[in-house]
Amino acid sequence: MILNVHPFEPFFNPESVAVIGASHTEGKIGNMVMKNIVESGYRGRIYPVNPKGGKIFGIPVLDDISKIPERVDLAIVVVPAKVAESIVDDVAAKAKYIVVITSGFSEVGNVEGEKKLLEAAKKHAARILGPNVFGIYSARAPINATFGPGGIRKGNIAVISQSGALGIAMIGRAAEENMGLSAVVSIGNKADINEVELLSYLFKDTMTKVVFLYIEGMENGREFLEVLKRRPKEKHIIVLKAGRSKAGARAVASHTGSLAGSDAIFDAAMRQAGVLRAEGLEDGLNWVTTVALSPLPKGRNVVIVTNGGGLGVVAADACEKYGLHLMDDMEVLKKTFRDVMPEFGSYKNPVDITGQAGGEEYRKALERAFKEPSIHAVLALYCDRGDKELNDIKDALMEVHKKYGNKPALYTLFGGEGASSIIKELRREGIPAFSEVEDAVSSLYALYKVREKKEEGEMDEVEMDEERIGKIIGEVAEEGRKKLLSHEAKEILLAAGVDVPKFHLAKTLEEAIKAASDIGYPVAMKIVSEDIVHKTDVGGVVLNVGSEEEVAEAYEAIMESCRRNAPKARIRGIEVMEMLPQGVETIVGSTTDASFGKVVMFGLGGIYVEVMKDVAFRIAPLPRKEIKRMIREIESYPLLAGVRGERRKDIDAIVDVIYRVGLLVDKFKEIEELDINPLMVYERGAKVADARMSIGVKK
Amino acid sequence: MILNVHPFEPFFNPESVAVIGASHTEGKIGNMVMKNIVESGYRGRIYPVNPKGGKIFGIPVLDDISKIPERVDLAIVVVPAKVAESIVDDVAAKAKYIVVITSGFSEVGNVEGEKKLLEAAKKHAARILGPNVFGIYSARAPINATFGPGGIRKGNIAVISQSGALGIAMIGRAAEENMGLSAVVSIGNKADINEVELLSYLFKDTMTKVVFLYIEGMENGREFLEVLKRRPKEKHIIVLKAGRSKAGARAVASHTGSLAGSDAIFDAAMRQAGVLRAEGLEDGLNWVTTVALSPLPKGRNVVIVTNGGGLGVVAADACEKYGLHLMDDMEVLKKTFRDVMPEFGSYKNPVDITGQAGGEEYRKALERAFKEPSIHAVLALYCDRGDKELNDIKDALMEVHKKYGNKPALYTLFGGEGASSIIKELRREGIPAFSEVEDAVSSLYALYKVREKKEEGEMDEVEMDEERIGKIIGEVAEEGRKKLLSHEAKEILLAAGVDVPKFHLAKTLEEAIKAASDIGYPVAMKIVSEDIVHKTDVGGVVLNVGSEEEVAEAYEAIMESCRRNAPKARIRGIEVMEMLPQGVETIVGSTTDASFGKVVMFGLGGIYVEVMKDVAFRIAPLPRKEIKRMIREIESYPLLAGVRGERRKDIDAIVDVIYRVGLLVDKFKEIEELDINPLMVYERGAKVADARMSIGVKK
Repeated sequence: MILNVHPFEPFFNPESVAVIGASHTEGKIGNMVMKNIVESGYRGRIYPVNPKGGKIFGIPVLDDISKIPERVDLAIVVVPAKVAESIVDDVAAKAKYIVVITSGFSEVGNVEGEKKLLEAAKKHAARILGPNVFGIYSARAPINATFGPGGIRKGNIAVISQSGALGIAMIGRAAEENMGLSAVVSIGNKADINEVELLSYLFKDTMTKVVFLYIEGMENGREFLEVLKRRPKEKHIIVLKAGRSKAGARAVASHTGSLAGSDAIFDAAMRQAGVLRAEGLEDGLNWVTTVALSPLPKGRNVVIVTNGGGLGVVAADACEKYGLHLMDDMEVLKKTFRDVMPEFGSYKNPVDITGQAGGEEYRKALERAFKEPSIHAVLALYCDRGDKELNDIKDALMEVHKKYGNKPALYTLFGGEGASSIIKELRREGIPAFSEVEDAVSSLYALYKVREKKEEGEMDEVEMDEERIGKIIGEVAEEGRKKLLSHEAKEILLAAGVDVPKFHLAKTLEEAIKAASDIGYPVAMKIVSEDIVHKTDVGGVVLNVGSEEEVAEAYEAIMESCRRNAPKARIRGIEVMEMLPQGVETIVGSTTDASFGKVVMFGLGGIYVEVMKDVAFRIAPLPRKEIKRMIREIESYPLLAGVRGERRKDIDAIVDVIYRVGLLVDKFKEIEELDINPLMVYERGAKVADARMSIGVKK
Repeated sequence: MILNVHPFEPFFNPESVAVIGASHTEGKIGNMVMKNIVESGYRGRIYPVNPKGGKIFGIPVLDDISKIPERVDLAIVVVPAKVAESIVDDVAAKAKYIVVITSGFSEVGNVEGEKKLLEAAKKHAARILGPNVFGIYSARAPINATFGPGGIRKGNIAVISQSGALGIAMIGRAAEENMGLSAVVSIGNKADINEVELLSYLFKDTMTKVVFLYIEGMENGREFLEVLKRRPKEKHIIVLKAGRSKAGARAVASHTGSLAGSDAIFDAAMRQAGVLRAEGLEDGLNWVTTVALSPLPKGRNVVIVTNGGGLGVVAADACEKYGLHLMDDMEVLKKTFRDVMPEFGSYKNPVDITGQAGGEEYRKALERAFKEPSIHAVLALYCDRGDKELNDIKDALMEVHKKYGNKPALYTLFGGEGASSIIKELRREGIPAFSEVEDAVSSLYALYKVREKKEEGEMDEVEMDEERIGKIIGEVAEEGRKKLLSHEAKEILLAAGVDVPKFHLAKTLEEAIKAASDIGYPVAMKIVSEDIVHKTDVGGVVLNVGSEEEVAEAYEAIMESCRRNAPKARIRGIEVMEMLPQGVETIVGSTTDASFGKVVMFGLGGIYVEVMKDVAFRIAPLPRKEIKRMIREIESYPLLAGVRGERRKDIDAIVDVIYRVGLLVDKFKEIEELDINPLMVYERGAKVADARMSIGVKK
């Protein structure tokens, strides 16, 4: 039951539906959709539209859209693209939600046609799903308004798929695997309705427990994150975003024309939102099925029960790979299984009830595992010894599983045809059963992962001189420059409250000498010019300048060298700055993602970033708690935490810098790119040694 | 046909077989084995033995072992452990090979009983498989002398399994997946016959193309490597060694009592031997099946053909993960598929022949892919749209696949029940077909990996002062010491031809001063004492000693400090040595593995080893070519190869050190542990900055 009626209620639970292009000819899409609607037991009003009139599946056909006697909740459009473009205005006047199954729009370059659909919908305050979709199924109505397979089993899994062919195949797979579905929506070109709105409904839908989202591109990462954050604790989502790889990303581009954001950023965003991302289709489907069927574990103790030591070891290896904890309290294991353990069995986890174990032994051992409160999840494995014993095993598993529904129990039957058919039977009864032990373990991992709803932490207030920051950015923009000069970037960071050592842009030698003596010796001196990127290469940098005479020498040397090596460069002056002692070099950066907007990055400087690619991303701004997780995520973290007798570095200082950078780029969206490289980190404090920044120049 | 008769010929192709403990009672192991032998169509002589006499499956039963009228090739023992122990001598007198199915020996602590079996076998020059096995199947005879399922399909896959239950289940799975088997051997406790001898036969067996080896422990790693090295190019092996994880290793210990060597070393050994190791059972079985069915790819260009863009992207992602190369030459792709491409299809790889594609489109597109010589492997994907089209697709795939057997082509049918049953049909026809696209991609990866037969490189001669090395080791052993003193370890390395900077053990101040002046200032000075491990902690080290006076000061300071901090330590003197300039710190080490013997290790020093665990292992000794691969394997390799404007370090010098260390520990097996830490590497040369060594002291 939906308490506050969601705007998408008529979409998922329509009282009336029109099929524009309903067909008399079997095999045609307009016929298949009609057939599915009728056969799915839809109880609302159905209006097939086709100029030929007549009846389809006994339902009178209207020969014109104008004849539809009401404004329907849902219209399904299956006519060819050209026709669809010409009638969409009429349809929009007669329907609240329009599902445009028709393809031949932006996915093949027909952007204009898609625009027409949208304009018509806007004019009549209608909404469009698609174009280029296979339709929608909703168990709530129930209605199967797709041209995919019929006979969908009602359940608690909702599927949103950006790929049509994959979505249709998934309906077939769902039937094969006995997955029950609450909804299936194909989102295709996403001209109007996208995954975010659908999710916001499905997270409120009482029939849906878990959503499987297959997407290739995502244009609205921020809204997506918002809806993910608002999801109720008992609703789960598993995301499969294809196009991770370079090759995959290329394929996406050719497939839907959607602009895929960087995969590392998508990954970071999902981690930040505490959302489980599947690497592939197999895992994704196994995970969704298991989350749909199983309660979540209440603790970390997993017990493996097996009749074959070998399969037990394989399972234990897989558990280790997925970071699952095998209960190792021998006292409890002995106490639990003592009087049900056959001779030569082993209490050690994997608990080996030996090759002699039949139905009775499994029944007893599993019963004990279910009853022992300190066991939180059970992996029961069976090595098929031939069909004779299999039925006993099946009966035992079914009986015990149904009796104790209190903790997750996943079953693997490894063997031949008999084992396969029993797996099917178990699945039909809603019991998570697998033919591969790795699939069972990976699915248990998913049960642990989906339960982790992220606690976010608070955003606290910090002071920033926003006026000053705005002024600097304004001046740079005024000049039409994209790149900020070193001292401008530093001034902004300073105004944002980041610790920037003293610096001064000197335009004359006298100014440089005065600046050096104000700052205190030794100082570093660097050329400042928007035309010089690699300052060292043109002799534009002198370090460790120790006295007034040396300032004078360095000043002349830099000027002379830059004039000779970069004669056309506009020279702004020479920056004089404090020399920093050596610390741990880190990088704090920010960039702008097409989908998620502002993101921040952290990593250790030098080879850690360049060779090991050891960096972490997050969507900005973000609370300090999450920043700490982000910092701990990098592999070289022990270097900051203190290792080999080195003292712990000031991680809170790094957190503060990232926190402020996150707020800065969020408030000043003009900042497109930002690099503090290095941020020198000490036992106390962290200081900006160098910084770059660029802004988006409005045209 | 086996040209030179292998000693295991009677084992795999017995002319006569006795079943000791053959039973009249259905369901008993002694009955199941008889049933399987008879039903497998075994054409040799069968002698069931049971005191009760009578007939089993029409074959006259002998009431005593002594009545067996010949020395049989194979005897299967199924009587209880106690009985087996008492009759084994009689059996050994009557059989060349004895398969002891009976359990209850070393796996449950009955080590004595197992010893009895072995002694009897030795006495009569018989060999024992097991105990604690499920028997053997050999397609050559054919004979199924197991108590597992019957009806095994003949083929080219041999399975060796250390786990009984898993092995039996695998026979069932093989039938279910239409895998044809050439042999199945259960090795159980490996009291006598182990995987190495079996492999040496199977690599010569013309029926066997690929061996699947499931093991948990390996005691004879060296022999295993030898047989792997000698395997013919056209024979393949896929190894699944369970017990990778700590939990898994514990389970192994409880299961078979076998001593598992370190997993990292096993992994390195497999890499060194060019052997494909599966991480889990699912991959392992998929890989074996595919290698059995498919030709190997002749080049790297993979083409994906799909009717669903989504599934194509998922496949492309998986290819990227496995490092497979998607052909990206658009000219060739266009040329190949131009006139068979439906409207709105995409030439980009994954080649999308659109959701409209039926059997005809698949036939044409695949035919083109098979014919184009620059395409080396094909992944054909089909998103199930409902059962109507499926049969057309199946016919097309079968027809094209059989017509062109020249390159690997793997099929994925993603969808419902119809798709599943077609996969079975395809498999029955020997066509590699999958329900999960990830399984298809991972199997293609296996085809690429198994073809990589390692070219080993030559072992060249290097000079070593073996006499000197032997003398030092001898003296240390004489003293009953395990740990060598710093100068002893260095002297051995020096004698092995490794670049050790000048050093001298000074016993007096005068000697120290002379040594320093001989070596040249500055020098380092370190206490030498077997009782002081952490020299720095007791004030036993002074660096950068620059003059005669400083030597005197340092000498006194060290002596004074060590006497105070470690009053009971035996002081051997003070080592005076050359100060090394800073280079890239690396570690070269060696240890002794229980299974593989001497191994060498390489990594970058400091945090790379300690925090990042970035090291590579190899079995020693090994040729320079393989050492280069070993060095390139570490993630921090770019630091040696030159990165960020740094110059390339002298990698050949590292190779030489590892090469010599490999030879050294191989020749002087007494050296149990060795650490050169750090080995300082420069643009030219690599020098030992410090070394530790320990030897096994004979008792």
